[in-house]
Amino acid sequence: RKRILVTGGAGFVGSHLVDRLMLQGHEVIVADNFFTGRKRNIEHWIGHENFELINHDIVNPLFIEVDQIYHLASPASPPHYMWNPVKTIKFFILGLARRVRARFLFASTSEVYGDPEVHPQKETYFGNVNSFGPRACYDESKRVAEAMCYAYAKQERISIRIARIFNTYGPRMHMNDGRVVSNFILQSLQNESITVRNTPYIYGTGKQTRSFAYVSDLIDGLISLMNSNYSSPVNIGNPDEYTIEQFALIIKDLVGANSSLAFKEAVTDDPQQRRPDITLAKTLLNWQPRVKLIEGLNKTIAYFRNELLVKH
Amino acid sequence: RKRILVTGGAGFVGSHLVDRLMLQGHEVIVADNFFTGRKRNIEHWIGHENFELINHDIVNPLFIEVDQIYHLASPASPPHYMWNPVKTIKFFILGLARRVRARFLFASTSEVYGDPEVHPQKETYFGNVNSFGPRACYDESKRVAEAMCYAYAKQERISIRIARIFNTYGPRMHMNDGRVVSNFILQSLQNESITVRNTPYIYGTGKQTRSFAYVSDLIDGLISLMNSNYSSPVNIGNPDEYTIEQFALIIKDLVGANSSLAFKEAVTDDPQQRRPDITLAKTLLNWQPRVKLIEGLNKTIAYFRNELLVKH
Ligand SMILES: NC(=O)c1ccc[n+]([C@@H]2O[C@H](COP(=O)([O-])OP(=O)(O)OC[C@H]3O[C@@H](n4cnc5c(N)ncnc54)[C@H](O)[C@@H]3O)[C@@H](O)[C@H]2O)c1
Ligand SMILES: NC(=O)c1ccc[n+]([C@@H]2O[C@H](COP(=O)([O-])OP(=O)(O)OC[C@H]3O[C@@H](n4cnc5c(N)ncnc54)[C@H](O)[C@@H]3O)[C@@H](O)[C@H]2O)c1
Ligand SMILES: O=c1ccn([C@@H]2O[C@H](COP(=O)(O)OP(=O)(O)O)[C@@H](O)[C@H]2O)c(=O)[nH]1
Ligand SMILES: O=c1ccn([C@@H]2O[C@H](COP(=O)(O)OP(=O)(O)O)[C@@H](O)[C@H]2O)c(=O)[nH]1
Ligand SMILES: O=c1ccn([C@@H]2O[C@H](COP(=O)(O)OP(=O)(O)O)[C@@H](O)[C@H]2O)c(=O)[nH]1
Ligand SMILES: O=c1ccn([C@@H]2O[C@H](COP(=O)(O)OP(=O)(O)O)[C@@H](O)[C@H]2O)c(=O)[nH]1
Repeated sequence: RKRILVTGGAGFVGSHLVDRLMLQGHEVIVADNFFTGRKRNIEHWIGHENFELINHDIVNPLFIEVDQIYHLASPASPPHYMWNPVKTIKFFILGLARRVRARFLFASTSEVYGDPEVHPQKETYFGNVNSFGPRACYDESKRVAEAMCYAYAKQERISIRIARIFNTYGPRMHMNDGRVVSNFILQSLQNESITVRNTPYIYGTGKQTRSFAYVSDLIDGLISLMNSNYSSPVNIGNPDEYTIEQFALIIKDLVGANSSLAFKEAVTDDPQQRRPDITLAKTLLNWQPRVKLIEGLNKTIAYFRNELLVKH
Repeated sequence: RKRILVTGGAGFVGSHLVDRLMLQGHEVIVADNFFTGRKRNIEHWIGHENFELINHDIVNPLFIEVDQIYHLASPASPPHYMWNPVKTIKFFILGLARRVRARFLFASTSEVYGDPEVHPQKETYFGNVNSFGPRACYDESKRVAEAMCYAYAKQERISIRIARIFNTYGPRMHMNDGRVVSNFILQSLQNESITVRNTPYIYGTGKQTRSFAYVSDLIDGLISLMNSNYSSPVNIGNPDEYTIEQFALIIKDLVGANSSLAFKEAVTDDPQQRRPDITLAKTLLNWQPRVKLIEGLNKTIAYFRNELLVKH
């Protein structure tokens, strides 16, 4: 039994991680400023003796005693990044890890590979990221954070873990973050053709690819990685790859929408292909994703339906 | 006539820039914490009515009124970076630029290209940087700073300039920063074979290349860029390319040392080739380097000789 801090624990990924850690019997402390997270995601734990919630902005110092830190706090969606890029790169939390000698897992991202010219992406690939463009803030913040983890590990002998997380979906994901899973499900549920709301639908040709992991698989991976003894980056994602057009059709079918597909201008620096090579995670952690896309999407669609009901 | 802030103005590049701006009749304010810079580099201006020196660490806010900011402050040498990676990426100075609507030039680096797979390097090349390795702190700090410049330019309509500076040498450069120019000159002047001090000399095969610009050429480039209307990154460097082995021989000859060359283990993630494509700077700024390597090295060697005399 350990004392574990989860920054960003009220968010999509964080709240699922908290559920799992609580069920395993750990003491869990969540530090979140509710910038994109919601109290509702974790309210079922409030009052539990092993659980503590701190309303805390990680741009400020934090002094607590813990054994492990899952550092997930960070706006996950590019528009949030643009809002205040300065704040995204302050990193007191490594100072905390140093003081209390906690093991530190950093939630990095497949975005460190940028628009990859190597496919699928292995951890040894250095990436193809535009440092001076609209996505740069998010991508480069994650890259420099990896660099700082490396420096702290070398200089301060902090035990670190780097999870390069690929696109993940599931219940509690944000409905209005403009990402593809939420947009497509919402648009299909509202039975809209793109033209109705006049919102973008498929950006560009739709031939660009992504590989989507269900959130429970990601949580398995994060926990295995934390408890491994490997301190270099590890991809955590599902290698099951789809074009965005295929993906739109799958969601439309599952929802039973008879909307048509529409196309909009491509996004600047939009990665054209993305699929994790998970050989390392398989070998090292004996981990691999188990949830099939259809199964995961059905659970996610059910969550969205329910949320829409609650809202109206 | 303008009010111009030069952060890092007591450093190698900064002090030469200050000289030029002062001679052009501007009001110049230097903000420096003398971490790697020296008062001696700018002491000839102290007392001049157009000159002001502020002992200031740029990790803290700064409130002054200026028209232009050359942001050069940042430890230039990797060992300095490792010392405190957290401090390198705080960036209040963009807040200053925003408030006073100053034009902002950021001293970026060829290191954003990492170990380049494209040769020579054009500004459109996204680079090949290891985000998780010993050089990562320096490289990624520069990359995320470019990203933040981009974000501030877009969101806050700040007028920004990005100079990607390639290896530069000349008088006032650091004698003990472990970089190739200073090491080779010092070692030759002290007429050492590598074995004497038992210090590394050529790291790796010596077949890796660099392209060296003399500092006065760099200053021309920086000032032209600042006063241009181009806000994307521009390479400033000398395309004259040498292998490190050639470079060692040239310096040995110029100094007249009869030391031999020796070889040491290669450095991790050492870029194997580097040469700027300066087509953009030529076209845009009508700029190109004018000082020949031999000429520039002779001036630099003279400076080093004199420094060694003063010291002993
Ligand atoms: N979801 C994905 O597909 C995905 C993919 C790659 C990487 N990641 C990374 O995983 C992590 C979690 O992502 P998510 O999808 O759960 O996002 P999320 O937005 O749901 O969760 C982030 C949480 O961090 C909190 N937070 C943000 N800024 C904070 C601050 N300054 N102080 C304290 N708390 C703060 C938010 O309130 C939120 O609860 C992020 O670091 C993200 O970059 C996610
Ligand atoms: N010299 C090169 O070959 C080269 C190549 C690429 C990029 N650059 C960039 O050009 C800039 C200047 O380089 P340089 O060679 O003159 O280095 P330098 O070390 O001589 O100058 C840097 C100056 O910044 C000051 N400084 C450092 N941290 C500071 C802080 N927190 N607050 C205030 N001042 C601080 C130092 O005291 C020093 O005077 C740097 O940003 C460097 O990364 C230089
Ligand atoms: O338990 C701790 C220890 C440190 N810090 C912060 O982490 C930052 C970096 O601390 P560290 O000791 O690593 O570096 P330094 O203070 O030497 O810059 C500092 O601003 C501390 O306030 C923190 O928030 N909690
Ligand atoms: O409504 C949308 C939202 C996204 N996308 C595309 O779907 C892919 C995944 O986008 P998302 O923003 O979800 O994630 P990321 O690009 O970060 O992987 C990208 O190619 C987007 O251009 C789309 O076609 N329509
Ligand atoms: O003249 C100024 C204006 C701002 N800042 C600092 O720059 C940072 C970023 O300021 P900005 O206004 O861009 O962003 P915000 O305060 O909204 O984060 C702040 O910490 C300010 O203290 C500064 O040092 N000098
Ligand atoms: O004493 C030295 C110092 C550097 N180098 C090599 O010279 C090149 C330039 O190194 P430096 O640190 O000066 O600059 P950078 O790598 O940042 O261009 C690199 O390939 C180094 O491995 C060398 O052979 N001997």
